Amino acid sequence: MDLEPSPLALPFPDMPEIAGATPRVARARYKDWDRCDLTYVELVEGTSVAGVFTRNVCCSSEVELGREQVTLGKARALVVNAGNSNAFTGYRGREAVEQIMAQVADHLGCQPSDVFVSSTGVIGVPLPKDKARAGIAAALEAPQCSWKEAADTIGTTDTFAKGATASAMIGDTRVELVGIVKGSGMIAPDMATMLGYIFTDAAVDPAFLQHCLSAASDRTFNCITVDSDTSTSDTVLAFATGGAGNVPLTSVEDAGADAFFAALHDVCRQLAHLVVRDGEGASKFIEIVVGGAVSDESARRVGLAIANSPLVKTAIAGEDANWGRVVMAVGKAGEPADRDRLSIGFGGTWAAREGQPLADYDEAPVAAHLRGREIRIDVDLGMADGRASVWTCDLTHGYISINADYRS
Amino acid sequence: MDLEPSPLALPFPDMPEIAGATPRVARARYKDWDRCDLTYVELVEGTSVAGVFTRNVCCSSEVELGREQVTLGKARALVVNAGNSNAFTGYRGREAVEQIMAQVADHLGCQPSDVFVSSTGVIGVPLPKDKARAGIAAALEAPQCSWKEAADTIGTTDTFAKGATASAMIGDTRVELVGIVKGSGMIAPDMATMLGYIFTDAAVDPAFLQHCLSAASDRTFNCITVDSDTSTSDTVLAFATGGAGNVPLTSVEDAGADAFFAALHDVCRQLAHLVVRDGEGASKFIEIVVGGAVSDESARRVGLAIANSPLVKTAIAGEDANWGRVVMAVGKAGEPADRDRLSIGFGGTWAAREGQPLADYDEAPVAAHLRGREIRIDVDLGMADGRASVWTCDLTHGYISINADYRS
Repeated sequence: MDLEPSPLALPFPDMPEIAGATPRVARARYKDWDRCDLTYVELVEGTSVAGVFTRNVCCSSEVELGREQVTLGKARALVVNAGNSNAFTGYRGREAVEQIMAQVADHLGCQPSDVFVSSTGVIGVPLPKDKARAGIAAALEAPQCSWKEAADTIGTTDTFAKGATASAMIGDTRVELVGIVKGSGMIAPDMATMLGYIFTDAAVDPAFLQHCLSAASDRTFNCITVDSDTSTSDTVLAFATGGAGNVPLTSVEDAGADAFFAALHDVCRQLAHLVVRDGEGASKFIEIVVGGAVSDESARRVGLAIANSPLVKTAIAGEDANWGRVVMAVGKAGEPADRDRLSIGFGGTWAAREGQPLADYDEAPVAAHLRGREIRIDVDLGMADGRASVWTCDLTHGYISINADYRS
Repeated sequence: MDLEPSPLALPFPDMPEIAGATPRVARARYKDWDRCDLTYVELVEGTSVAGVFTRNVCCSSEVELGREQVTLGKARALVVNAGNSNAFTGYRGREAVEQIMAQVADHLGCQPSDVFVSSTGVIGVPLPKDKARAGIAAALEAPQCSWKEAADTIGTTDTFAKGATASAMIGDTRVELVGIVKGSGMIAPDMATMLGYIFTDAAVDPAFLQHCLSAASDRTFNCITVDSDTSTSDTVLAFATGGAGNVPLTSVEDAGADAFFAALHDVCRQLAHLVVRDGEGASKFIEIVVGGAVSDESARRVGLAIANSPLVKTAIAGEDANWGRVVMAVGKAGEPADRDRLSIGFGGTWAAREGQPLADYDEAPVAAHLRGREIRIDVDLGMADGRASVWTCDLTHGYISINADYRS
């Protein structure tokens, strides 16, 4: 992490320990560097797990295995390798993951399927088994570390450590949630990968935990974009240890289920925003609020079309209230829209209403807003009540420098 | 056109006159500039027309009207305004187009629907009717100009004039085709717009002309991308005057129909490539050849996913044979693919075969290839026989400079 921190970085929050989840870090030296690059989190027996994974069909062995493992609903350990993504490495890549699962399972006396593995870094190079074996052995002996150290260790090209926390009351029991995430620095010669892990001491049935994580991800992790490219390794896992001793949550009807979901959603939203804040070359954080769509899903698609438009993103980088480019992006989304009902605004000021520029449009407050670091674009499609928020960053020379101005 | 010509520019070809199509240019002064910005092409009675238009739902009045007009199949004139796109201007924009159609129809003694209008330039400002009226009047009096002058006049932020020509034998009759195109410079504060016009002296039934143009466009104009953004005004029109005197073509069964289609396809392909060669900031022309897909359409979608990937485009800008980013782009396309059957090469040299890096991969010829201006990426999905070629350019600091480093 030799890069300058992103100008949009936020400080790492104070994060509580989570009963039943013990993070440790070690040096596997997957690359020629002197830093911790292997994260190990031991989880108490009875821990529930849920996960969401990349939809990229060229996914890594870790993702293939993880998808199967979460259906079993239980976890005893998480291992995250940084510096080698192990993607596109055929059977040798898969063998390396299975070795790690077996080594940890042997140590804990659990099933290999209770051990979750993620990897991030260069692709096309099988994870070196000897380094993994020694790294795991070192991690099993290492003292407990802080969540900040774990967040630093899962990072690769991230410019700052990313964490979030929240709490909720389930009946009389207070439960804590913490989350760490890495991404979306995609520097030489790697591809973007977002890895996120959430730990809670709440007792939650695996099926309900999966329900909550999927719902929260749809409105957070699936509503961010840096450059429209989708990693082969993206993974978000949630682990619930039950250490808080609450009556286990099994459905949305349970007392405290709403509060738990709200807290999980809050952690996911914070983590997703932190990823955008570390977007390569980002100088502005952009929130796109789409209303008046035919459905929430349609609003999300329109929002992502705007967020992925290089012309919109460069306009924001240039502090230019170019609402014409937003119109273009709305139109290309392929969702129901009507040019003559469309309204577009920046920072709370409408620039165009119902298909035409405002006659009395005052550009001064918009120009002032665009000079800031936190940008808001409002789009009202004027069709129905569907709405969504989407987050992205601007597209700058920094992105080109990071991704083009080097050789792998 | 004060910009440096693109390093990928090609010289304007010698283009023949087309019997029955008479180009003229004039100064409407849509912007505060001293250049011709109104192109008028008069077409002989009996001219057939076909067209393909942007799928952007926020399209301009010109596009809305043009879509209706081509269904009638006949044309007497084309008017192209440069400097003002007339998009997102509500009923006032539509009135301006209808005024132009009426003025020309009155002069020629034809129906307003025989007059095709396109506009390109700033959006949100209704086309000024007085300037349009005076510009048309001047064009009607102007002498015939060359196709090169017409190509220069339809351009806005283009860095070089773009034209292509081909010929075909229909029976004993030689027919000529010429085409001009503008795009895809998308400079301040406008959006990309591609406008293309093809003129032939062949006699072709409108329905068959439409069939040919749609088929040719699917494999040419619909297989290029600069930045994935889709203009609200993209238009390609083909006009067949019949001046060559051939037996009119009415179906694919007719003698000479194959030759005519091949020539039309050739002109479309040349024009499409010229647009890519003038892509904003482009320093390399990239051909992506996808084979082994489940269908040609699937191959095209995979090709476009690669061509639209900022990570692939920046890697090529950096002369980096980063096949991992190509894998990622294949995987995110959402088309049938199998990581373990995928092969990727650059300039004729395979870097990865069937899901794994080649053990004896020789990077030297690939590195030499990537230092050139004409880049080829080969992708074999190993699934079936579907194939497609897609063309794009690299993503450089020049793109950011053009689109972000100014205020509108």
